[in-house]
Amino acid sequence: MDKKFILGAIQNDVSDNKADNITRVRELINTAANEGAQVVALPEMFNCPYDNSYFPHFAEEFPAGPTISMLSETAAGRGIYIFGGSIPERENGMIFNTCFVFGPDGVLLAKHRKVHLFDVELSEGISFKESAVLSSGNELTVVDTAYGKIGIGICYDIRFPEIARAATLRGAVAFLVPGAFNMVSGPAHWELTMRMRAIDNQFYVAGVSPARNESAPYVAYGHSIVVDPWGRVLDQLDEKQGIITTEIDLDRLQQVRDEFPLLKHRRTDLYEFREL
Amino acid sequence: MDKKFILGAIQNDVSDNKADNITRVRELINTAANEGAQVVALPEMFNCPYDNSYFPHFAEEFPAGPTISMLSETAAGRGIYIFGGSIPERENGMIFNTCFVFGPDGVLLAKHRKVHLFDVELSEGISFKESAVLSSGNELTVVDTAYGKIGIGICYDIRFPEIARAATLRGAVAFLVPGAFNMVSGPAHWELTMRMRAIDNQFYVAGVSPARNESAPYVAYGHSIVVDPWGRVLDQLDEKQGIITTEIDLDRLQQVRDEFPLLKHRRTDLYEFREL
Repeated sequence: MDKKFILGAIQNDVSDNKADNITRVRELINTAANEGAQVVALPEMFNCPYDNSYFPHFAEEFPAGPTISMLSETAAGRGIYIFGGSIPERENGMIFNTCFVFGPDGVLLAKHRKVHLFDVELSEGISFKESAVLSSGNELTVVDTAYGKIGIGICYDIRFPEIARAATLRGAVAFLVPGAFNMVSGPAHWELTMRMRAIDNQFYVAGVSPARNESAPYVAYGHSIVVDPWGRVLDQLDEKQGIITTEIDLDRLQQVRDEFPLLKHRRTDLYEFREL
Repeated sequence: MDKKFILGAIQNDVSDNKADNITRVRELINTAANEGAQVVALPEMFNCPYDNSYFPHFAEEFPAGPTISMLSETAAGRGIYIFGGSIPERENGMIFNTCFVFGPDGVLLAKHRKVHLFDVELSEGISFKESAVLSSGNELTVVDTAYGKIGIGICYDIRFPEIARAATLRGAVAFLVPGAFNMVSGPAHWELTMRMRAIDNQFYVAGVSPARNESAPYVAYGHSIVVDPWGRVLDQLDEKQGIITTEIDLDRLQQVRDEFPLLKHRRTDLYEFREL
């Protein structure tokens, strides 16, 4: 198994024109691949404004749909893994917030449906009720790749330390978070959350946001970030469209785990965490 | 139950003279009480240099010992709760890193023995092996007070998200961390860890360190800190001896939990965390 790989994280502008979004993201993936990315991570709802009124109209049902096709074709065309952030997915009359993952042969490897729906009402005036339109997934997801196992949590999922914990206990070396934190939760918690999940679980974490669009119904924070297993920020964007490409080094991960053996020191005689 | 209380956090200089340490800490507790503190939290090993060679000589066996007596008498004398950071405790030939908690009547309410021993070896040259001298506790600790339940974790304990999770699931409104992070882990992780445990568990967190002593065998980071349930830093010291007194507001805690109901949104159908 390769001990290093290049991760590309893409923070794209999202408009209410789905075809434009798909074209733009295809170009950004190609740019990341040109810069050496072997695993590309996209943001939450990269093809659709993050708003309940849009989800039904932008949804696709696997294996049909122009977004799903673009992901598969681009993965195969470039021979890379694509963790497809998320898009609205339709199945059996329900809509999910779903990350499709394609391997270098263009075949679907996994999908993660957001398991924790975002139903909050902040006094600062920001509120959202995903459950009015979306259904929740019922599985935690870790994907086998040629570089090791990679976990996925979509946005609000990462608020729950349990899902990153589950991933590291399953052997994940990295955890990807397609996420659109807002202008309250973003400045308050985005970087902190990504860094602390990395520190606690001693793996790499990438938080991948859409670019900020001040005229959108929901304004994303941006600031896509990649963090190493010691919590160091390897790279971080501002609020504008952009790409991170950075090396993920599994020797570095092992060094952190050897020097500071948190995962071995868990008192599993005193407490138990398990997936049901 | 009172909805507000004043927390005092004390960051004291620690020398190799135990009697001096006790006198100094008594004075600082009295100063905090004069400033209105109703609950006082002390640092890890507030009466003893943090070094394996000192622990056996500074240890006390409950209920005897000048440190234990000072804590009990000062709690009763001022009518306050004292969470006694930690001291080396001797019992049955073993030594523990123990937090004694006294109520306003001076009676022992609880004790927490550090459950995760700090055995690490950083490439930056800092290493420690507590288990060479210390034995570990075998219980997680949450203390009932007139202001609500307060959890305790000693230093390395807080590295494990499980113990703060256990405390919030038991109903804790605050979590106290007597801790001596060092000059590598402190700048890298101290503030981040306290803030994130507060955010995840939506309670107040106080990290309480000894003051820095550059000539000590183990140099503590200092920077004692109190964080609210949204992760805001209410107050933080620098590296020198000092006191924080700050209001803990349980209405604020409830507001955070109402607006952003993380604890209700846990998918307990998909994962389980429990104490054994």
